[in-house]
Amino acid sequence: MRNIKLTIEYDGTRYNGWQKQPDHMTVEGEVMEAIYKITREHVKIYGSGRTDKGVHAYGQVCNFYTNSKIPIYKMRIAFNSQLPMDISIREVEEMDSEFHSRYHSIGKQYRYRFYSDKVRRPLLENRAFHVYKDIDHDRMKQAMKYFIGTHDFTSFKSTGSSAKTTIRTIHSLEMVDREEFMEVHISGNGFLYNMVRIVVGTLIDVAAGKIDPEHIPDIIKAKDRTKAGKLAPACGLYLYKVYYNSKN
Amino acid sequence: MRNIKLTIEYDGTRYNGWQKQPDHMTVEGEVMEAIYKITREHVKIYGSGRTDKGVHAYGQVCNFYTNSKIPIYKMRIAFNSQLPMDISIREVEEMDSEFHSRYHSIGKQYRYRFYSDKVRRPLLENRAFHVYKDIDHDRMKQAMKYFIGTHDFTSFKSTGSSAKTTIRTIHSLEMVDREEFMEVHISGNGFLYNMVRIVVGTLIDVAAGKIDPEHIPDIIKAKDRTKAGKLAPACGLYLYKVYYNSKN
Repeated sequence: MRNIKLTIEYDGTRYNGWQKQPDHMTVEGEVMEAIYKITREHVKIYGSGRTDKGVHAYGQVCNFYTNSKIPIYKMRIAFNSQLPMDISIREVEEMDSEFHSRYHSIGKQYRYRFYSDKVRRPLLENRAFHVYKDIDHDRMKQAMKYFIGTHDFTSFKSTGSSAKTTIRTIHSLEMVDREEFMEVHISGNGFLYNMVRIVVGTLIDVAAGKIDPEHIPDIIKAKDRTKAGKLAPACGLYLYKVYYNSKN
Repeated sequence: MRNIKLTIEYDGTRYNGWQKQPDHMTVEGEVMEAIYKITREHVKIYGSGRTDKGVHAYGQVCNFYTNSKIPIYKMRIAFNSQLPMDISIREVEEMDSEFHSRYHSIGKQYRYRFYSDKVRRPLLENRAFHVYKDIDHDRMKQAMKYFIGTHDFTSFKSTGSSAKTTIRTIHSLEMVDREEFMEVHISGNGFLYNMVRIVVGTLIDVAAGKIDPEHIPDIIKAKDRTKAGKLAPACGLYLYKVYYNSKN
């Protein structure tokens, strides 16, 4: 059987997240349906990870096995012709039979968009977190450096996560001014359930003066979700890239 | 009576343009309705100009007269509470009785977003023009300089315009790389009907090799719409700013 890797962009606004569920529109469900329409096969899809309701992606990755004989260069156009306008397959690659989008991933980059304004911005609706308070970017940057490295991130995960270990490594964490909004870029070897949204929510609490930047190491050490800041809303979160070794 | 100036941002996707019409959702119609709900007055709105179906705005300006006694600092929150999420009043100012958003405007800036890609991008759906062809930015920049200055722009207007003169001055025209998309910024003392979209459509034809940059002066001189390029789609166009003398 052929093992096909897909890289997918989506606007998650209309979807109940990535993972297929009965009675809900999901991104995975739409992708499976598009593959079925082209190949007439009900394939099983292996995603690099779930995204929650309302979360977006520039580069979600998944793979599936198929007996289809469609040439690889025709697949992208064929699948995209069957997908709604808010989902698009950006790349299709044929992989070795053992490639698995989750097990072989060596890391991910997420991006989180927010803007600080007294007035809501219609052109950022469902695309960025509207922070009504004033934001002190310097305080936020001071807090960021404490997250980098290998830590037990129990304080920054929601319950419901089935991860075997709560230790993760954050390789980089930075803030980029994108003119209309600010963007937090966070790369790591993996992320616990809701971890990016809780890290960003905590940074915004720091920026708003509720938490001192120097207090972050204590929050990490506490291994207690109640010590960290709020969960930032889903609409600002983008799964930007899933990393693999070059052979994948 | 009080003369109130509004600066409005909107995502034009759902609207049949700015101008109020029976049996169609329009931005002006929604703004009038919101003002009615707060003041109980059916006001007449004077817009700086119309925007077409699907065109967006960061800074559309309009004014209206009212007998309402609502303090100016309460108006923005009151009106916004009655507007849908894709329209937002960014600023409310009380003006001299003679201020008129169209007659007193001394110029406008529009921005046009496009991206060149073999694959459509869901996160730019309805927000930028998807150009499937490769784009030569250098050719585009070469063509831009010929538009700057005072010209008869008859070749760059759609029929249906009621403007008294077809002479307009373009103060600046530049292209900005916004990472996910390219953005054309165009400022001038005024624009004919569809002028920005035809200028951009022509620039994209230049970039795709269909028109030579050096041919632009001849197209302007021809005063013939058929010599210019295609009308670029509405979804990429943003009314960015309306300029007034400092006293306004």
